[in-house]
Amino acid sequence: MELFRQLDLQDLLKRALHEDLGLGDITTAATVTPGQRGRARITVKDERIVFCGGPIIEPVFAMAGGEPKITALADEGQELTRGASVVEVEGRLAGLLIGERTALNFLQLMSGIATATRQFVNAVAGTRARIVDTRKTHPGLRAVEKYAVRAGGGFNHRFGLDSGVLIKENHIAAAGSVTSALEKARRLAPHTLRIEIECETLDQVEEALKAGADAILLDNMSLDDIRRARELAGECVILEVSGGVTLATVRAIAETGVDLISVGALTHSAKAADLSMRIEPA
Amino acid sequence: MELFRQLDLQDLLKRALHEDLGLGDITTAATVTPGQRGRARITVKDERIVFCGGPIIEPVFAMAGGEPKITALADEGQELTRGASVVEVEGRLAGLLIGERTALNFLQLMSGIATATRQFVNAVAGTRARIVDTRKTHPGLRAVEKYAVRAGGGFNHRFGLDSGVLIKENHIAAAGSVTSALEKARRLAPHTLRIEIECETLDQVEEALKAGADAILLDNMSLDDIRRARELAGECVILEVSGGVTLATVRAIAETGVDLISVGALTHSAKAADLSMRIEPA
Amino acid sequence: MELFRQLDLQDLLKRALHEDLGLGDITTAATVTPGQRGRARITVKDERIVFCGGPIIEPVFAMAGGEPKITALADEGQELTRGASVVEVEGRLAGLLIGERTALNFLQLMSGIATATRQFVNAVAGTRARIVDTRKTHPGLRAVEKYAVRAGGGFNHRFGLDSGVLIKENHIAAAGSVTSALEKARRLAPHTLRIEIECETLDQVEEALKAGADAILLDNMSLDDIRRARELAGECVILEVSGGVTLATVRAIAETGVDLISVGALTHSAKAADLSMRIEPA
Amino acid sequence: MELFRQLDLQDLLKRALHEDLGLGDITTAATVTPGQRGRARITVKDERIVFCGGPIIEPVFAMAGGEPKITALADEGQELTRGASVVEVEGRLAGLLIGERTALNFLQLMSGIATATRQFVNAVAGTRARIVDTRKTHPGLRAVEKYAVRAGGGFNHRFGLDSGVLIKENHIAAAGSVTSALEKARRLAPHTLRIEIECETLDQVEEALKAGADAILLDNMSLDDIRRARELAGECVILEVSGGVTLATVRAIAETGVDLISVGALTHSAKAADLSMRIEPA
Amino acid sequence: MELFRQLDLQDLLKRALHEDLGLGDITTAATVTPGQRGRARITVKDERIVFCGGPIIEPVFAMAGGEPKITALADEGQELTRGASVVEVEGRLAGLLIGERTALNFLQLMSGIATATRQFVNAVAGTRARIVDTRKTHPGLRAVEKYAVRAGGGFNHRFGLDSGVLIKENHIAAAGSVTSALEKARRLAPHTLRIEIECETLDQVEEALKAGADAILLDNMSLDDIRRARELAGECVILEVSGGVTLATVRAIAETGVDLISVGALTHSAKAADLSMRIEPA
Amino acid sequence: MELFRQLDLQDLLKRALHEDLGLGDITTAATVTPGQRGRARITVKDERIVFCGGPIIEPVFAMAGGEPKITALADEGQELTRGASVVEVEGRLAGLLIGERTALNFLQLMSGIATATRQFVNAVAGTRARIVDTRKTHPGLRAVEKYAVRAGGGFNHRFGLDSGVLIKENHIAAAGSVTSALEKARRLAPHTLRIEIECETLDQVEEALKAGADAILLDNMSLDDIRRARELAGECVILEVSGGVTLATVRAIAETGVDLISVGALTHSAKAADLSMRIEPA
Repeated sequence: MELFRQLDLQDLLKRALHEDLGLGDITTAATVTPGQRGRARITVKDERIVFCGGPIIEPVFAMAGGEPKITALADEGQELTRGASVVEVEGRLAGLLIGERTALNFLQLMSGIATATRQFVNAVAGTRARIVDTRKTHPGLRAVEKYAVRAGGGFNHRFGLDSGVLIKENHIAAAGSVTSALEKARRLAPHTLRIEIECETLDQVEEALKAGADAILLDNMSLDDIRRARELAGECVILEVSGGVTLATVRAIAETGVDLISVGALTHSAKAADLSMRIEPA
Repeated sequence: MELFRQLDLQDLLKRALHEDLGLGDITTAATVTPGQRGRARITVKDERIVFCGGPIIEPVFAMAGGEPKITALADEGQELTRGASVVEVEGRLAGLLIGERTALNFLQLMSGIATATRQFVNAVAGTRARIVDTRKTHPGLRAVEKYAVRAGGGFNHRFGLDSGVLIKENHIAAAGSVTSALEKARRLAPHTLRIEIECETLDQVEEALKAGADAILLDNMSLDDIRRARELAGECVILEVSGGVTLATVRAIAETGVDLISVGALTHSAKAADLSMRIEPA
Repeated sequence: MELFRQLDLQDLLKRALHEDLGLGDITTAATVTPGQRGRARITVKDERIVFCGGPIIEPVFAMAGGEPKITALADEGQELTRGASVVEVEGRLAGLLIGERTALNFLQLMSGIATATRQFVNAVAGTRARIVDTRKTHPGLRAVEKYAVRAGGGFNHRFGLDSGVLIKENHIAAAGSVTSALEKARRLAPHTLRIEIECETLDQVEEALKAGADAILLDNMSLDDIRRARELAGECVILEVSGGVTLATVRAIAETGVDLISVGALTHSAKAADLSMRIEPA
Repeated sequence: MELFRQLDLQDLLKRALHEDLGLGDITTAATVTPGQRGRARITVKDERIVFCGGPIIEPVFAMAGGEPKITALADEGQELTRGASVVEVEGRLAGLLIGERTALNFLQLMSGIATATRQFVNAVAGTRARIVDTRKTHPGLRAVEKYAVRAGGGFNHRFGLDSGVLIKENHIAAAGSVTSALEKARRLAPHTLRIEIECETLDQVEEALKAGADAILLDNMSLDDIRRARELAGECVILEVSGGVTLATVRAIAETGVDLISVGALTHSAKAADLSMRIEPA
Repeated sequence: MELFRQLDLQDLLKRALHEDLGLGDITTAATVTPGQRGRARITVKDERIVFCGGPIIEPVFAMAGGEPKITALADEGQELTRGASVVEVEGRLAGLLIGERTALNFLQLMSGIATATRQFVNAVAGTRARIVDTRKTHPGLRAVEKYAVRAGGGFNHRFGLDSGVLIKENHIAAAGSVTSALEKARRLAPHTLRIEIECETLDQVEEALKAGADAILLDNMSLDDIRRARELAGECVILEVSGGVTLATVRAIAETGVDLISVGALTHSAKAADLSMRIEPA
Repeated sequence: MELFRQLDLQDLLKRALHEDLGLGDITTAATVTPGQRGRARITVKDERIVFCGGPIIEPVFAMAGGEPKITALADEGQELTRGASVVEVEGRLAGLLIGERTALNFLQLMSGIATATRQFVNAVAGTRARIVDTRKTHPGLRAVEKYAVRAGGGFNHRFGLDSGVLIKENHIAAAGSVTSALEKARRLAPHTLRIEIECETLDQVEEALKAGADAILLDNMSLDDIRRARELAGECVILEVSGGVTLATVRAIAETGVDLISVGALTHSAKAADLSMRIEPA
């Protein structure tokens, strides 16, 4: 919760509401009497979801002019089944109607990501492996999506290019070698950042270990190679596995003893959760 | 193409790049020599996609400091198979690396939506039905997502609450009846907008027709009821079907003779297309 | 009221206040004691106006630091005569002085437009014709000005280029013919939008009707031609008249039976209403 | 020209274009072929105007995607008669159509103000009086409107509350007296600013002179009182007349020997100039 | 206080907090329990300072999510010695920790400037000279820094290029001569602004006086020349001295009888005040 | 150079220029002929500086309308002595005058910081200690100031609260103990971040080492304690010294073998470099 960037959240929600509202909701203006009040309830239509997005509900309806009074009926990260209610909102009817789609669009995205993450987290239960996200997020929604990964029980990789060092194959090529890239990064990066490097072969892993990498990302390696990398690295260097990981393959990878498994699909391809809102005039 | 809001696109891309870049790309700063140039190629890793997003490539790499020279290798809406290249970019190596993830995040989203849309469009080929999108989009990305639907061969529903009138069950309840809601809307709405109303029963359809609705959205109706609605409505009133439409069910719906079938999953749950970028120092 | 885009209104008012205030109100800073409070009253100096703009008063003085308590003394759209008070504001004296000009600048504009609109609306009373506005508004103030037209009893044409289709002579030329332009528009436009086309001759009107136009704008036609167009169009196609309409000519046009008469002067040339504010230190 | 705030102008024009364009110009998208080019000409439809606004033409059409090539046919402040062309623009046809209304909305406003100003300036020709504007401008458009006043031959009063000291009746009441208000202002204001005070009676004028006012605004005084104020003030103190000045009264006021006559109607009630744009596909 | 631009202050503080906070305070998120509250106290660590910046404390901690209750323990401009407390803040512990650095960064800057200013003000006590600031401020912080100069007992020069006329050597060269520059400025500038001109020699001073300058800036002149300029100017023209003024030289300059001494170092090189904040969990 | 956030730099420079320019430069408008061109040269007036800020020169003058052609005469980080030229700019005279102060305000700040940093860097030459900056920067200018530290030969600490973990005494108190705080941080923080903790006693250092801290900040410790901490920590844990470090004390601290010495005064109290610009009409 506390990592949620409240400061920018307001701007994000406002942009989202504005995008939908434009110059005004003509349908609501025509059909709702100005003073009218109403009561809305958001419920789950999927068989089972991990709920996420509660903190956006109040500000969205407030911006929409709903003067909302919120009764939260579900916690962040809670598992819910079909028919469960996640929130009740009482307020100005026009504002509830105006904010409906924007609120649901956030909830369906965030709960969808939390739900997908929980599946991966459950699949590796009992191993040391953490499920982590990637930078493959929807443009403009990274903070919200990384928050949803945490709500699902996952962990965050670096937020962006400035909050971590991850040397990829293109950087190695530019620097000339694994060793040279690691040295250059250590020289420039603030000491508060660990240096991670992506390796595609065990030879690269050995070179990276010799050159003092803090963490190694094993890209699309076989299970055998991953196990071998774990032996080479010992316990002090962090090992991450990445590349086409699915629910079918994640358990076996986790059992190799790696520290992190990163899964792009958590954020770029999670199915939206199905939630709906029903409003009654008061 | 021409509906693409160039004016806001710049802001959107800048926000996206900024989100990823923060205070700067430390890894690239460490490993790339300032003057170094490079050549990047973006290729398809999925078996088959409908490509979309070409127009964002140049501005993203330009903002990232890539001074890009673009060679487009695919058209908007073109079907491509694994290994096909979509673009070649020559420019400053640092800028190519900085812009890589942001560019790919747009392309994977937009091509994913175009690909999903094309499947639905193909499924209804030969019928009069148009596949249209909904307002169930990712917050902040609606213009881009609706553009991708068009690239896939679909059509757009209204952009937002101000560019169309769609009276839903909540509005009917607020106004008192179908007839009253339609009358109120006709009184307020600019004459440039058609009045559409959502009906859940054939009785509502009959009332809506009598009250002069321009279009009717049939919500979660059976095929028989849809066919009956078509007969009742004649040819002059636009009929739209909505609610849980899938690739398995869409053809049968189209064959009832409805005009529009709207599919939320086109935008809220399309699987990201898999594209990757390989860069060579020049 | 409900079409008023609250979301952007805050930004608009802030920009306006900022424009006037810059780095601070030196005169007020010099002459007013920090804690001092005051009471202001805004009154009508014109012989007769239609009042509009009430909703901007509280936020302007709040932004100006006035901690205002508002007593509204006039309704939106109410007719007032010289000396009538529209509002009383009690608050911090400095804030009242800082916000005075900005508040009055909005009120004089909005009431001016409402007043001009009411004159046209009264002139066509008893006919079927609606008085509608145009896109000839002051840059940045369209939402506010279209709201004032409604307060005066008029109706809104489309808000902008994205919320309506209006094919003008330049578009016809580009598309090749009236028929071709209408077909192309029907193919692209969301079904929520009606297709309107501007005609300068009865021949064009006939072609437009044959090609299925939803609405026709009759540009600068004689009364006889307008009457003939009405006959040709029957009752189902919306007819709009535009071009140099004045208070002297509007009644005769309305009596031809057209549906809409659009008047650019409502927004681009309405005389500002004369309002003044008198403040007393408390 | 040089006082024109180029920095903010870009933002202003973008906001204006965005306001009109929203998510895109559907009509143009439907009727114009992407690559098509065209040639536009803007001409005068009024009998006689003072032209103003030339510098906004190129950036508006450029933002609209018109890739415009401009041929200016009129100077800022030049008098033109019906049928005269002010500019020719060659470029992408879609961009010309998209930018048309926004460009015209600026030109009709700015030329309208310049035209009104020129009438007042001509009316006082040969006297020492300068015609100056006020802060009664359209919110968000002050820089543009004050520029138009200069183009018409008028002069600018202070831009806003931070670039001048003008003690009004409300400030005098707050400070206790004319003398006290002047002393307080002199103590606080930067020395780069003159201290002006509004007087409603000759007694106040005398007190203001004694207390060392740099300038005095004579509010709604009779011609006799204005003449008397001129004698009392001598030549060193600047005298400004304000309050309901019209073309019918301005000459007599100017002949009293005052330095400045401020006219709110220049900006708040100038009739829009009538200009139109005709586009030909190339 | 009243000159403090509240409107922009919110934006400035938000930008500052955002700059420090980025995507969230990871350390605080990890170590603080969500509901935890705390009490903070900001104290002076320097031997002696002039305190300034009180009004930023509440909004910074509010934006940071601190729900702060403020007990002010020092006035703007008050002299404090080591160990003195300036404020006590009670609120949510996480918010106090998040806002700490941003609040202190403002206070150390503003109190530093107020402290430096007070030293110069004290040094010229008893003379007619005012200590004034310059435009040599930190980009983006001018309003805040000029406010701090006033809190220290100094006065403000013009805020920026639009709120004063100051003809410098480069402008004189462009205009051709002192006389020509003054004439041109008088013709263009609003009458609310005085015309000041920078002179490097007594010859220029004489020319400026003859041409009717309202104020003269004596640039880097000797004490003798300054005294001579005072005699030439008489009492009616404002004289300002500028250029390398230090605490060691300012008294002698003041005793020549000049009106203003401007000191760039007040804002560009003031040593930051040393303040620290200690927080206790409640 | 490459860490310089180009994306935000444009906004920062625009805000700075806008702050100075407001509604326009009246002095320049009055004295400069529109078409006039000029040549400017910026030179060093201090005895010796380390130059920094070259990349802001071109965009500032471009925004100011100077159409500048730049001839760079000094490199970032280069030492220069009095009279040396840093840049020559040819362009529109009005734009050069308008941009002058903004450009100089950046250069004087950035060169001032680079100069101060270089002194500390030279003082520790030959030891393993890096000079690093802090978060004690001017609000809104952190990216620019941290860039200047690098130009001076220093290194950057974390950019902000989201790009590093630094557990301070307040966090330890909140978490209960050094050990608990470290454990909690390790659980939450992305693996790309090192965990640093501030210690005030050797007992805390021992506890931190046992609990697996990656880095320890020694706050205001004696030289003896610092040396002892070095022995306890061995070579694998990073040691940073902070607290009132001056040019007089920094060498002795560096010789204890610590890795980093952080100095707040580099950014919050560096004396502005003295640079001036002379312009000649061409």
